[in-house]
Amino acid sequence: MMQKPRLTKRHRIAVDAMGGDHAPGEIVFGALDAATSFDVDILLVGQEARIAAELTKHAGSIPSNIEIVDAAEVVEMCDPPITPLRRKRNSSIRIAANLVGEGRAGAFVSAGNTGATWTSARAVLGMVEGVDRPALAALVPSLTPQGFTVLLDVGANVDARPHHLREFAVMGHFYAQMVFGLERPRLGLMSIGEEEGKGNDLTKESFAVLAETGLNFIGNAEGRDVYNGNADVVVCDGFVGNCVLKASEALGEMIKQTLSAEFKKNPFRMLGGLLSGSALAGMKKKMDYTEYGGAPLLGVNGGCIVCHGRSNGKAIRNAIRVAAEFVEHDVNGKIRTKISELHSQERAEGLASGDQPAGQRS
Amino acid sequence: MMQKPRLTKRHRIAVDAMGGDHAPGEIVFGALDAATSFDVDILLVGQEARIAAELTKHAGSIPSNIEIVDAAEVVEMCDPPITPLRRKRNSSIRIAANLVGEGRAGAFVSAGNTGATWTSARAVLGMVEGVDRPALAALVPSLTPQGFTVLLDVGANVDARPHHLREFAVMGHFYAQMVFGLERPRLGLMSIGEEEGKGNDLTKESFAVLAETGLNFIGNAEGRDVYNGNADVVVCDGFVGNCVLKASEALGEMIKQTLSAEFKKNPFRMLGGLLSGSALAGMKKKMDYTEYGGAPLLGVNGGCIVCHGRSNGKAIRNAIRVAAEFVEHDVNGKIRTKISELHSQERAEGLASGDQPAGQRS
Repeated sequence: MMQKPRLTKRHRIAVDAMGGDHAPGEIVFGALDAATSFDVDILLVGQEARIAAELTKHAGSIPSNIEIVDAAEVVEMCDPPITPLRRKRNSSIRIAANLVGEGRAGAFVSAGNTGATWTSARAVLGMVEGVDRPALAALVPSLTPQGFTVLLDVGANVDARPHHLREFAVMGHFYAQMVFGLERPRLGLMSIGEEEGKGNDLTKESFAVLAETGLNFIGNAEGRDVYNGNADVVVCDGFVGNCVLKASEALGEMIKQTLSAEFKKNPFRMLGGLLSGSALAGMKKKMDYTEYGGAPLLGVNGGCIVCHGRSNGKAIRNAIRVAAEFVEHDVNGKIRTKISELHSQERAEGLASGDQPAGQRS
Repeated sequence: MMQKPRLTKRHRIAVDAMGGDHAPGEIVFGALDAATSFDVDILLVGQEARIAAELTKHAGSIPSNIEIVDAAEVVEMCDPPITPLRRKRNSSIRIAANLVGEGRAGAFVSAGNTGATWTSARAVLGMVEGVDRPALAALVPSLTPQGFTVLLDVGANVDARPHHLREFAVMGHFYAQMVFGLERPRLGLMSIGEEEGKGNDLTKESFAVLAETGLNFIGNAEGRDVYNGNADVVVCDGFVGNCVLKASEALGEMIKQTLSAEFKKNPFRMLGGLLSGSALAGMKKKMDYTEYGGAPLLGVNGGCIVCHGRSNGKAIRNAIRVAAEFVEHDVNGKIRTKISELHSQERAEGLASGDQPAGQRS
């Protein structure tokens, strides 16, 4: 299901060709793959000569739906997030963001410096009207029928307030609609303990706020509900989401290493390992982040897909597909409408009760 | 390493025979195993007739180092945490806690209602002098040389302050010394981003506080450092720790299910699965919580080992061993001394600067 692009129109996607551990080679390779697989136009942003050389290496002729946009500078992984706004305004990340800001592309994709990507997206694109803070949404493998659960925020913010979690819920809802094709994705609030009264100050306050959104709110989710298939979307503040996501990645890696070491212990096990190789590969494919390409930074006014620094061509290809679907489904338009409805509802209730509407607090 | 009891003296451990999904059968079985394996005295607390029947079923004669202490009532899993203090004062959990409070046992072990166990331990035993809040410490499998990392707090508290994280650090340090036999366990502060300035309000404030403890503080740890072997102890508030722990458990379970389904897909894989069975068993053993028995509730004035509700006899046996080691190593005495030192140091600095010492805030 994750592999089929559902595009009815042609979209233009900007790709930061210089970002990531394997740039520009794998990025250009992935873009070429996407250009021949999907009905998209791709703007490859970066140092023109290097990109052209990579293109020629992989393709006899450059496909007509790929265009190079020159960007002299490169943001390094160690550069501070503010770099594309101050020191390197001609960097590929900044220019990719500019292309979206100017309406020349619907979304941009980067596997480069994550902080610099967020900062550029937020500063150049601004926020979707009514949204206070962006959130990074990760697709994690799970026991849901679709095989994945959306977890957000996984680190764009720390120290959220209840109305931020409400924004994350709305954004996660429409993103899950898009990627899973679900009408009413089940939405859980990450907490400790399932009952309404359980959790910390933030989740206790947020429970009532989420219950009033009209979304398919199923109540508190525990850490286990990220994986056990009980929820399609789990919302939490970026600190908790980041800790859970990074711990999970490391646990997966540890299990892989442990299994691999166990398989090498004797010849029977080695033979077993060979025979069961396809089973392990099947599991690996299911757990493989490159299948779903990247995590969107939701809430910014334009598409921004953040890829893992170690992305290969396949991850980039899939991130471009996700970016095109994001534009196709007008996820931002849906978020804007829903948030506006919630604010109107709140204002009406506020006028009735004489309270300050929560949407006006910051 | 985790299997060798290091006991130089004889300790008396109270065991709640009625708590857990498999009580009293597996609890009694585990206690019998411990009684014959380790140099401990065991007080089996619960409904006398049922315990006696279980003992007779498993053993021809009752070992001299097992004694039954009658407790008429049983706290159910669905009972509120306050139950042993109010409604069921003759419950096995409450009486096990009382035995420690009265000095008749050095520690107690329960696989029953976790909230009720904490509440009883805290109310009956009180806190170690100078410690403000207890913390539940989990041993999670990791790539450290000893194969485990201590993660705390995993859910005894929510909404911690920096001086609480300092208490958790001190308690985690001495617990890791005991279970790992390490002189200076590496202590990380769970955060997002490794640099000092990264994280949320709590971790930014806590960084400096932990740096001044004189413990082997290695700075911020990310979620991945729980598993990748970089830290021996990771401290966090109970909300974050609980989310990470429960997500990890569910991810492990999902990987197990996915692998099992993949192995069943064709005969070659099934044969491979059979041949590699011992490799999978090796991994399972490494990830198996029953190997380390239970999680101590640190900070209460006496030993309290909380076991998983689904504990089997082996888990109970190992929890009894951990309880005896906890008493043997005088973990609480070491915590008391260190916390007192930190408070003195703070008072001295406070007098010098005219500030209110942090240890006096609540």
